[in-house]
Formats: sequence, structure tokens, C-alpha cells
Amino acid sequence: MNTCPLILVALILAFVIPNPSFGYSPREDARLIRQIKRGEALNHAKIARDLVHRANWAALGSLSTNKLVEGYPMVNIISIDDSDANGNSTGRIRFLLTDLDFTGPDWQRDNKVTFLFSDEQTLRCKDGGKDPMEPTCARSMISGQVKKMDPTESGYQPSLDAYVHRHPAAKNWLKAHNFYLCELDILNIFVLDFYGGPHKVSATDYYAVSN
Amino acid sequence: MNTCPLILVALILAFVIPNPSFGYSPREDARLIRQIKRGEALNHAKIARDLVHRANWAALGSLSTNKLVEGYPMVNIISIDDSDANGNSTGRIRFLLTDLDFTGPDWQRDNKVTFLFSDEQTLRCKDGGKDPMEPTCARSMISGQVKKMDPTESGYQPSLDAYVHRHPAAKNWLKAHNFYLCELDILNIFVLDFYGGPHKVSATDYYAVSN
Repeated sequence: MNTCPLILVALILAFVIPNPSFGYSPREDARLIRQIKRGEALNHAKIARDLVHRANWAALGSLSTNKLVEGYPMVNIISIDDSDANGNSTGRIRFLLTDLDFTGPDWQRDNKVTFLFSDEQTLRCKDGGKDPMEPTCARSMISGQVKKMDPTESGYQPSLDAYVHRHPAAKNWLKAHNFYLCELDILNIFVLDFYGGPHKVSATDYYAVSN
Repeated sequence: MNTCPLILVALILAFVIPNPSFGYSPREDARLIRQIKRGEALNHAKIARDLVHRANWAALGSLSTNKLVEGYPMVNIISIDDSDANGNSTGRIRFLLTDLDFTGPDWQRDNKVTFLFSDEQTLRCKDGGKDPMEPTCARSMISGQVKKMDPTESGYQPSLDAYVHRHPAAKNWLKAHNFYLCELDILNIFVLDFYGGPHKVSATDYYAVSN
């Protein structure tokens, strides 16, 4: 039996995985091994983009200003959309906020937020027999600042239309309570999609992914 | 037509809903109106307990110590379990952490965390035609401190066994990388399950819910 290809795969894995001590399961995955045999690496930017586009919502962390948990992280469920007018992914994470909810006052005092996206939101991990905390259950943590969109800008109305198309309930939210459309100004992207620890993806590489 | 029952319901709603300005949709829901007609109020503690017990995971917020996003909130996906030896709900949120992941170093520098649970994690809102951000898509934010469990305590092994029963992948996690079992020491519980804003539930009321 010729074991050379397997040894090569093992050697390649040793170099490809940036921080082997970070992972917490044996480094075995048929898919990755097949990809590496074909000379492909996982496209972490594409994985982040796909996670964002598939998700209807994110778990959004902020620094709490609520007096009962002041100084704690708050995590809220926020409906999001990144579609263009044709429903295609843009990567631009847009969302409606109101100052009557937890997140609104938080970002305005200290504008630091993190969005969590996971393949388990759509049950892709469960359906694939993967535990939601397994590194192979892909996730992305996208941190940055909330940017209130300017209704006079040309991109505003198409973005709002796409959002409402995906979240028809937003028609009611917009009738009162001063909801405002925001976009995330991305500072940092982590992607964890396999054993070996998270990968840092730049906003430039993330936005450069084509559909 | 006798409108008196409807007026009574409206009056009761006005008193039952603690902060009407917080909600962001018309206060109409056939289920609540039926409940209030029957003299029932929503049991927020029970709703939180059910959310926790149904969930296999939570979005866990911490205060980031990662140098790329230091001072930001971090949000991680953490597998949880609250079952007793018979699989019944105890409300005690237990989870495995490793210092090689984001959350481990964070809680040890500033022990303030928040767990988000939502009915959308199991697609109950989507399947019921509710947007994940609608207040009727029930959610709970449970804040507190991470408590590392003591392996010599009598409750430790049954808790770990229940956790591994629910998360068989944990058998591999425990083989290396110094995963440790933790329980959340609850400081504050918010429950949002209807229009009108979140409810505060005490840890005592939460743990007192019987199955």
C-alpha cells in the first residue's frame, strides 16, 4: 500500500492549521482531507459570507447600559439581512434597532458590538450530526461599530426594501417606536470552521467574495 | 353586541403589561387575550425554564480579552445542558469551557457573562410564522458569573454524565485540552415573550418552577 499521499496530507495539515493547540478534537475530517488532496484550502471569507447570507438573525453582543446588568455583556436577537435588490449576498450586515430595546442605548454609549453567526441557527449542524460546539459546526464572530444609515443616501431605500422583503414583520416595527436602519462597520472577523482554531478574515477579503 | 368583556380585557392588559412603551407592535395576540380572559398571566419563569431546557446551546456573551477585539463584547456558541439524571429540567445551566477558546480567558479576567436563549434556535418561531425579532418569539437573557464546578462535589459526576449524554461529542473534548465543567451563577434573568417589554424574573422564581 502506498502511504505517501496520506503522509503528504498530514504534512500539509501541519502547516495549514495555524494554531493546532487551539482545536480540541482529533484533526480528522474527510471533507478537508479531500479538499487538501485537491490542493484547495477552506475559503474562510466565503464561509463567513455564506453564514451571514443564510442567517435571518444574529446573536448581537453589546456592552450593557441596563442598570440591572450594567457593565455586563448583553446578547440580543436581532433580525438581519445582507441582500441586494436581487436577493444576492453583499456581506453588508443591515439591521433595524430601536432605543426602546437593549441594544439601542448600549451602542450609543459604547459603540462596540459583536455578531455571532452559526450554522446551527439553520440546524445545518444538527442535521449533519454535528454538535453545535464542534469546530466543524461553522461559526463567525463579526465585531465592529453600529453605523446609523442616512435616509437621504441613495443606498438607503433599496437596503430598507430588501430588509423588509426578508422581514415582513418590520413593516409593523417601522410604524412606530422609531426603528432606524443600521449597518455594521466591520473591525474584525473570526471564522471557526474546522479543528485548529479560529481564522482572522479581513473586511476587504470578506467583501471581495463574489457570489 | 356586548362589548364589556373586550373592554375588561383591554383594562387588564393596561395593568398587566409593565412597560407598554417598550414593546414595538400593536398589543394584540389571540393567545394572551384568551389567557387573560381565563384569568391567567404568562408565566415568565416557566418560559425561561422551557427555553433553557429545549436549547442544546446558547449564544454566550463575555467581555473580550482577545487582543484584536479587546474591550468588545465577544459572543460564542456554547453547548449547554440543564438536565438531571432522568433528563428533566433543573434550570441549572451547565457547560464545558476550555481556556483555548474565546470564553475561557474572558470570564477569568472579568467574570460577567450573558446567555441568550431564543425559540428561534429550534426554529419554533420560523415554523410558527413569527419573525425572530418579534417580541412574541420568546427569548431570555440570563446574566451571571461562571462557576467552575468542583469534581469532588457529589453533584459533579451526575451533571457531567447528563451533559455528555446530551452532547456525545464532549467525550472527545474531554480527552484533551483541559475542558472544565461550569455552572452559571445567575444574577439576572430577562424574559421577552410578548409585546410590552421584557420581564425581570428572579433566580428564586426561576429555580422554583416545577416540571
